[in-house]
Amino acid sequence: MPTLTIIGATGAVGAEALSILESRGFPAHRLRLAASTRSAGSSIPYSGARLPVHAADDLAFAAGDVVILAADAATARAIVPCITAAGATAIDNSSAFRLDPDVPLIIPEINAHLLDEAPPLIANPNCSTIILLVALNPLRRAHGVVAVTVSTYQAVSGAGLSAINELHTQTRDILAARPVTASVFHEPCAFNIFSHDSAVSPHDGLNGEERKIIDETRKIWDDPALPISPTCIRVPIVRAHGQSVSITLSEPAAECAIRAALAAAESVRIIDDRAANSFPTPLKATSADDILVGRIRPDPAHPLDARGRSRHWCLFIAGDQLRKGAALNALQIAGRLTSPASATIASIFTAETQRTREIRK
Amino acid sequence: MPTLTIIGATGAVGAEALSILESRGFPAHRLRLAASTRSAGSSIPYSGARLPVHAADDLAFAAGDVVILAADAATARAIVPCITAAGATAIDNSSAFRLDPDVPLIIPEINAHLLDEAPPLIANPNCSTIILLVALNPLRRAHGVVAVTVSTYQAVSGAGLSAINELHTQTRDILAARPVTASVFHEPCAFNIFSHDSAVSPHDGLNGEERKIIDETRKIWDDPALPISPTCIRVPIVRAHGQSVSITLSEPAAECAIRAALAAAESVRIIDDRAANSFPTPLKATSADDILVGRIRPDPAHPLDARGRSRHWCLFIAGDQLRKGAALNALQIAGRLTSPASATIASIFTAETQRTREIRK
Repeated sequence: MPTLTIIGATGAVGAEALSILESRGFPAHRLRLAASTRSAGSSIPYSGARLPVHAADDLAFAAGDVVILAADAATARAIVPCITAAGATAIDNSSAFRLDPDVPLIIPEINAHLLDEAPPLIANPNCSTIILLVALNPLRRAHGVVAVTVSTYQAVSGAGLSAINELHTQTRDILAARPVTASVFHEPCAFNIFSHDSAVSPHDGLNGEERKIIDETRKIWDDPALPISPTCIRVPIVRAHGQSVSITLSEPAAECAIRAALAAAESVRIIDDRAANSFPTPLKATSADDILVGRIRPDPAHPLDARGRSRHWCLFIAGDQLRKGAALNALQIAGRLTSPASATIASIFTAETQRTREIRK
Repeated sequence: MPTLTIIGATGAVGAEALSILESRGFPAHRLRLAASTRSAGSSIPYSGARLPVHAADDLAFAAGDVVILAADAATARAIVPCITAAGATAIDNSSAFRLDPDVPLIIPEINAHLLDEAPPLIANPNCSTIILLVALNPLRRAHGVVAVTVSTYQAVSGAGLSAINELHTQTRDILAARPVTASVFHEPCAFNIFSHDSAVSPHDGLNGEERKIIDETRKIWDDPALPISPTCIRVPIVRAHGQSVSITLSEPAAECAIRAALAAAESVRIIDDRAANSFPTPLKATSADDILVGRIRPDPAHPLDARGRSRHWCLFIAGDQLRKGAALNALQIAGRLTSPASATIASIFTAETQRTREIRK
């Protein structure tokens, strides 16, 4: 029977994927969990039972299976050939294959049509890219987007569970006036912000996270020369990223048109109450499926035209980087595949989407 | 004998001013402290003695005195006329007079020449404006700055001492799994970020902090149509603000020229080690007199020209908003006045500047 396999089930993204599957009633007998040899042999609670965690190296794959990899790039490079050679489909959350021209890089709301050709391997984008593009794509469809500037406010959990522990430990130490030690990050993270912990290129001064946003955005939007200027910063929050965004449209738009395009968009929720000063925050975005968008306003650096329209807009975005930024996006890709295992996944997402729409009405 | 008076001596900015004066040996007998009637009658330790705190309403002023107001706008509007009518000079840290065309708005590194006319009232800019412009002004002098985009990462202490207490209390509550209550801010501040707590204009969607950055920058740079696009966000840090900045120059510049202009600038310190991923942070900026600048790089949205130059640059800035962003800037203004009380102040800053320069050599 076709199976959904999660490799990296004991990590932050794997745990999030299991939580989503469990809450939507995905059947345990169709699910197989795996992790590194270190975690293999343990078990994970799921729907009232415990599922064994296999060693990823020991897995056999069958045609029609879907395998989600929530592991590092080296693991992905080693295992993906075994998956695709067996006729199964791999969805890889690492950066290993994202820029490979033969591998589609998918955000279902944007380019799910690339799945129609039944690719053996699909790459899941970086969390910051997903959060940014889910929010901007409706504006691109409606008015064209010809330039993007984004400054991020990124949660520590993007660096894994150990980073959350470091934030909590350092915070307790500071509140108790004890000295602070940093090991996961290169700077103290409690009550501090710092430039993203990915390596900085000596050549262009961009860090790895910024480079991913540039390259992945250009690939997903199929716009290889798109001007895009990211600055990635870590902030002392546990989960969900914030993004301060300025965009240039290819044609001027009125604020009501901008809001209408966002309001109609899949996976976007507007939170924008100027009187109450209520806008997206990481806390509001935590565990939410949608990307939150607010502070929608014309860029004050550019005057409105005679019809009250502008090509230049500012937004503030928040999204859960473990959920839509990683696990949920991968599961949504799985649900759109034509593979036999996908039918079960697709059914739970279709039901969920209908339920969400009904609640909103 | 001419006196320096600090009104609002019991607040965060007043306390910072006292700390600076004490560390530089400003004589206690030339210093007079005042606060609201609520705090009047108390005393504050200074250089081994205790200075009484007078009621601001009871003060008399004399020609030649300098008065720094670290109080709210309403207090400033009530007291400033008494100060100037007596022939004393007022330096106001509130927003009350900043945009008054008759009142110079001063960052000494930029427009100290406006003090030559001995104005009776000088306005101290908003902290975010000071931090931004101290860093950008050397680039404006060298290459012209024709557009600015800035996203802030602002410490809670900009909202006063009660905000620091709220951050610490909420943080303790979350770590102990207790429910959180918010009273100073409209959103939970612990392990969260949120759009700045100043009121948002229903008309243009800008909050008060963003409007201050726009209006004050245009006034200080005497460039009333400068395109400037700020987004102001609070982050859960105690002290010192971060800023992610993109600028457009009026002429292309090479990276070495950008770095040289910043390295030579007064009150600017470059922290930019790509190999060590070491850049400005609020912790490094805390209690520092200088504004820290790093992540200096050409904006990747724009290709370099044939000579390797660009008009588009990105920076990350951090500065102590209570120190150079408020108290230190006001004291530096006081030291540049031609008023008799200023001679004593000027002497301690001149000595300090010389000492700093010698240490750097």
